Amino acid sequence: MATLQDLGVSAFINILGAFVFLLLFAVLRIQPINDRVYFPKLYIAGKRAADHRGARRAINLNLCTYFKFLSWVPGALRMTQTELIHHAGLDSAVYLRIYTLGLKIFLPVMVVALLVLIPVNVSGGTLLKLRKDVMFSDIDKLSISNVSPGSNRFFIHLLMAYVFTFWTCFMLYKEYSNVAFMRLHFLASQKRCADQFTVIVRNIPHVSSHSTSETVDEFFRRNHPDHYLGQQSVYNANRYAKLVKQKERLQNWLDYYQLKFERHPEKRPTGRTGCFGFCGRKVDQIDYYRARISELDKRIASERHRVLNDPKAVMPVSFVTFDSRWGAAVCAQTQQSKNPTQWLTNWAPEPRDVYWQNLAIPFFSLSIRKFLISIAVFALVFFYMIPIAFVQSLANLEGIERVAPFLRPVIEVKVVKSFLQGFLPGLALKLFLYILPTVLMIMSKVEGYVSLSSLERRTASKYYYFMLVNVFLGSIIAGTAFEQLDSFFHDPPSQIPRTIGVAVPMKATFFMTYIMVDGWAGIANEILRMKPLVIYHLKNMFIVKTERDRERAMDPRSIALGENLPSLQLYFLLGLVYAVVTPILLPFIIVFFAFAYLVYRHQIINVYNQEYESAAAFWPQVHSRIIASLLISHVTLFGLLSTMKAAYSTPLLIFLPLLTIWFHKYCKSRFEPAFRKYPLERRLWRRTGWSTHRSQA
Amino acid sequence: MATLQDLGVSAFINILGAFVFLLLFAVLRIQPINDRVYFPKLYIAGKRAADHRGARRAINLNLCTYFKFLSWVPGALRMTQTELIHHAGLDSAVYLRIYTLGLKIFLPVMVVALLVLIPVNVSGGTLLKLRKDVMFSDIDKLSISNVSPGSNRFFIHLLMAYVFTFWTCFMLYKEYSNVAFMRLHFLASQKRCADQFTVIVRNIPHVSSHSTSETVDEFFRRNHPDHYLGQQSVYNANRYAKLVKQKERLQNWLDYYQLKFERHPEKRPTGRTGCFGFCGRKVDQIDYYRARISELDKRIASERHRVLNDPKAVMPVSFVTFDSRWGAAVCAQTQQSKNPTQWLTNWAPEPRDVYWQNLAIPFFSLSIRKFLISIAVFALVFFYMIPIAFVQSLANLEGIERVAPFLRPVIEVKVVKSFLQGFLPGLALKLFLYILPTVLMIMSKVEGYVSLSSLERRTASKYYYFMLVNVFLGSIIAGTAFEQLDSFFHDPPSQIPRTIGVAVPMKATFFMTYIMVDGWAGIANEILRMKPLVIYHLKNMFIVKTERDRERAMDPRSIALGENLPSLQLYFLLGLVYAVVTPILLPFIIVFFAFAYLVYRHQIINVYNQEYESAAAFWPQVHSRIIASLLISHVTLFGLLSTMKAAYSTPLLIFLPLLTIWFHKYCKSRFEPAFRKYPLERRLWRRTGWSTHRSQA
Repeated sequence: MATLQDLGVSAFINILGAFVFLLLFAVLRIQPINDRVYFPKLYIAGKRAADHRGARRAINLNLCTYFKFLSWVPGALRMTQTELIHHAGLDSAVYLRIYTLGLKIFLPVMVVALLVLIPVNVSGGTLLKLRKDVMFSDIDKLSISNVSPGSNRFFIHLLMAYVFTFWTCFMLYKEYSNVAFMRLHFLASQKRCADQFTVIVRNIPHVSSHSTSETVDEFFRRNHPDHYLGQQSVYNANRYAKLVKQKERLQNWLDYYQLKFERHPEKRPTGRTGCFGFCGRKVDQIDYYRARISELDKRIASERHRVLNDPKAVMPVSFVTFDSRWGAAVCAQTQQSKNPTQWLTNWAPEPRDVYWQNLAIPFFSLSIRKFLISIAVFALVFFYMIPIAFVQSLANLEGIERVAPFLRPVIEVKVVKSFLQGFLPGLALKLFLYILPTVLMIMSKVEGYVSLSSLERRTASKYYYFMLVNVFLGSIIAGTAFEQLDSFFHDPPSQIPRTIGVAVPMKATFFMTYIMVDGWAGIANEILRMKPLVIYHLKNMFIVKTERDRERAMDPRSIALGENLPSLQLYFLLGLVYAVVTPILLPFIIVFFAFAYLVYRHQIINVYNQEYESAAAFWPQVHSRIIASLLISHVTLFGLLSTMKAAYSTPLLIFLPLLTIWFHKYCKSRFEPAFRKYPLERRLWRRTGWSTHRSQA
Repeated sequence: MATLQDLGVSAFINILGAFVFLLLFAVLRIQPINDRVYFPKLYIAGKRAADHRGARRAINLNLCTYFKFLSWVPGALRMTQTELIHHAGLDSAVYLRIYTLGLKIFLPVMVVALLVLIPVNVSGGTLLKLRKDVMFSDIDKLSISNVSPGSNRFFIHLLMAYVFTFWTCFMLYKEYSNVAFMRLHFLASQKRCADQFTVIVRNIPHVSSHSTSETVDEFFRRNHPDHYLGQQSVYNANRYAKLVKQKERLQNWLDYYQLKFERHPEKRPTGRTGCFGFCGRKVDQIDYYRARISELDKRIASERHRVLNDPKAVMPVSFVTFDSRWGAAVCAQTQQSKNPTQWLTNWAPEPRDVYWQNLAIPFFSLSIRKFLISIAVFALVFFYMIPIAFVQSLANLEGIERVAPFLRPVIEVKVVKSFLQGFLPGLALKLFLYILPTVLMIMSKVEGYVSLSSLERRTASKYYYFMLVNVFLGSIIAGTAFEQLDSFFHDPPSQIPRTIGVAVPMKATFFMTYIMVDGWAGIANEILRMKPLVIYHLKNMFIVKTERDRERAMDPRSIALGENLPSLQLYFLLGLVYAVVTPILLPFIIVFFAFAYLVYRHQIINVYNQEYESAAAFWPQVHSRIIASLLISHVTLFGLLSTMKAAYSTPLLIFLPLLTIWFHKYCKSRFEPAFRKYPLERRLWRRTGWSTHRSQA
């Protein structure tokens, strides 16, 4: 077990790390040379021009600005929510609400828990007696483990579990209703977007002697005569796209040489045509590239002609446009054909949001893909456990010393020992998780979803299962480690909550370390943007030739929902599980939520450029994951109390998960349709349920 | 354990029972006095008039007809499916297909199992060696228990499990596609039914200063302007209905006295007005009833006026009619309001199918009701187990003798012993299950479903869970009984399939007895209609006064889907589980399916009068229950093989449930929409997927 001292060392290292990162950020962000790394969104939004603050001068020499160490914070907070939605889209604004939701849930919970539970736990005092038998850390004196078994004090914990659950549900309900309202309002107030009048039709059956577009046209003219406007077929234009890309590259070179020629009009740039300009015939570069571009133009035109006329290039997918939102809503929500595997209609994703590669997958193949990927995810989730458990066992220094006695002198140095025990487990886990999102995204793509937003949501959901099994359960059970794993598989079902319940308070220090490494230092690293910074300067040095290249070297990225949502959900899980068990963990989570909120607000305003707008389609997932966390916290508490000889608690706790499940079902039917369907009602925002509902909420 | 001899006695008793029932039926059905008991459907369909076969003559004296013992069989088989649909509706015709599906699945399975598995099992021969240790019955020599542990013969069982599963899935796919086709064809070929153009709208919000019908009118005129035709409000007319009922009763008395007067014109019937005609003033009955009816007519008219004009009598429910199926389909499938708990639209059930009492339940109450009922069902399913286990333990005669030694002389009589062992457990169980469907139906009503068909489906599903846990698992685990129950709760999860797997072959004889009692004798009892027969004659004797009364005393009933579907699903479960384990059980099931098919075909043609037509909406449930049975059979086999030291079988078996689950998902997306939605496509039955699909299937 890590002692309070280990924890202190870890906290010191992480706070120092975060501080260094923030300091570095403060210095780097005011260098004009880094402007495109730290403010790309402003360039994209047109709020900052290329020559801003004299970009020519690479280094900031104004000493005053160096002293304003946290000057970015007020800037990040200044924007109102409406401006934020306008500036960065609804997805980003709602994403930030997850952090405020965390604060809203955990701040009152923390206050109550610290005021009520810590005194109860401290005065419980069994561990002081048991000291010799078990190695507990000082943290455990503040946790539920410190209460003597069979004590009546557990009624207080039980009461707190009820209070925290009701409070969480109340905040969840309010937030769900707010987000649903924001979504509907956002969709209704958008300017006439094409995608709101468009439906994507997939699995169009092949009718002989008809082209796909004729089939589609005929079908919709017959079945939606009043509102059908037109259709746009999808072509397989991979070769065409390749040619266009090639042309862009040539154009870039041409621009480069023309610029060069303008600056030194006395000398036309020349070069050789062969490999890397070392061999081949010597040519005038400007003429050469002009000739190649015009030749390519002809090929592009002929390819275009081929694609448009070749029936094989048309995919069995079409975007069908209607003359009203009503017509599109009707078409998207209804079944078109008697064969439910044909003429599948859905709201068209935004053009930016479409994942073109997956549009033409036939229904049968989709069904097999989903099946195979779900098996693969299962395997991935459960076989990753082995290496993680191995890394976790490293945290047990006694084990290392036993295996490798020659390391003992190094490990026994007090600082090294504390460092290893406090820092390693969290960091190793984090590194381990680094490549995972990419793998999961590839899996989701194989599954065949047609929009980037749904791909990210699916990735997030896979990643969540992974985190739940491997980070949460894996750390709790395999971390205490192989000694518990064995008994876990051979225990009866009633024993599993107990095993988890007993291990949870012991693992509190580990999770505190994890929150500091992953949460605090990790978020500070996010604002520093180390990787994009390095890559931008490397590109700037070697590749960038024209202003267009510099624009392209800028890498604003977007909020990585696929990774961030599951991490956030893990923090909610930790907070809810430990709220009753070891409330001293809550301040760590509060600090995380507050700090991350600031950082992400700053990044959303200045850096990220969302690739698409899904109008907060991810919220139902956020909601149900927090509900799942609540349920897990109930099971944990149930197991823990049953080992504490608090037998009377069983019947009292059983209602909590039941009520939570009912609450979830109610919220689902009450709000989820707003995220899946589009209501037909024409008169928006007036005299209807929503407005009255708003005034109640 | 029951021996082969016990089984023989049981079979003899049950076959005799079935034979006696059939004989009784053959005699009773040709008595004209029973005509309305055995052929009510023909009266209702107008194919038989009141004076058919000289109904005045009560007893059939034509001796020839007594010798045609099974003469009803050809009559039952003669009708084609199309005629059957026309005569009794699609529900009945598709219900019969469940029996033929059972025959199609199990006949080939039985042939293969008997030819391949029985020789393999018999020549396995461990039990002969173990004879002294365990009391096995002779049936077990034919079952998988007879193969020595670790034998390579288990590969044959494994192969058979794959073959049977694939065959079952193949038949299921064919049948699902057929039934879906029949359903769509039935809906399309119906004459212009009002319910196909009508949508039921629930949870209409209250708008002040508007009546409900005005609100509805305005809402649909605005949101469905092109196809909206009109709406019909629903009134709370309980008092009105009561008055109408009262009038009918008075009218009946009036008819009775008028008839009496016509027969004896010399004497006007008189009576007293007080209780039971014993006290009160003496009156002329005809005048008296005429006066009361005319007085009631006035009250009815005023009540009618009140209901139509009182805004409180209008319920927040409406039937909205459209001018086309297309318009109704659009409205039923889409979300109307931004608040998804208001303006809930669904296909209107047939007028006969509506369960009026549940129409006005608000959304929030519905959500709570569903939650509470699901808890209640859980409690019912799991606490019924205790009495069942008690009854099961009676089957263990040694146990009775130990508890009540004074009964020993009676029990030890050989015939009594065989009778008790073979007959009691099945019968006790059956009696026990008798009141259950009523309770479950009440629960479903509380849940708030709005159509009788969905009520019956929900009852069936609750009943299925009950049967699965209490009859199947309860008999397998608690039957071997309290000695296994204890270890079951304290075993690790991996042990549960083993416990079931080991117990399954031991319980084969019990289930054979069960099939004979419940299946064979039960079905023969169904055709005899003992209860309706007695009740009809009692009514005829005491209540019936006029021809209208006689019509009403006729009780054709309908197929009790709520009870019959789960029973059938239990037979599928038994067949699939025992196909590999104890194939000798299969002939019992085949006999059941064949016999029940004949009986129900006869009953559907001559007796049952379906209350409503749901166009085979129950088929998805039938399909998924059979899939669940397949999965249970896999788990059982898995557990059984793992105790048989056939360790190599584990990796080979794991694919079977996975493939089955995938098959189910595919079928669900392929066919289920046909049972839930209504396609918008206008051109039916031509050139579309369905016709091409039909030719493939």
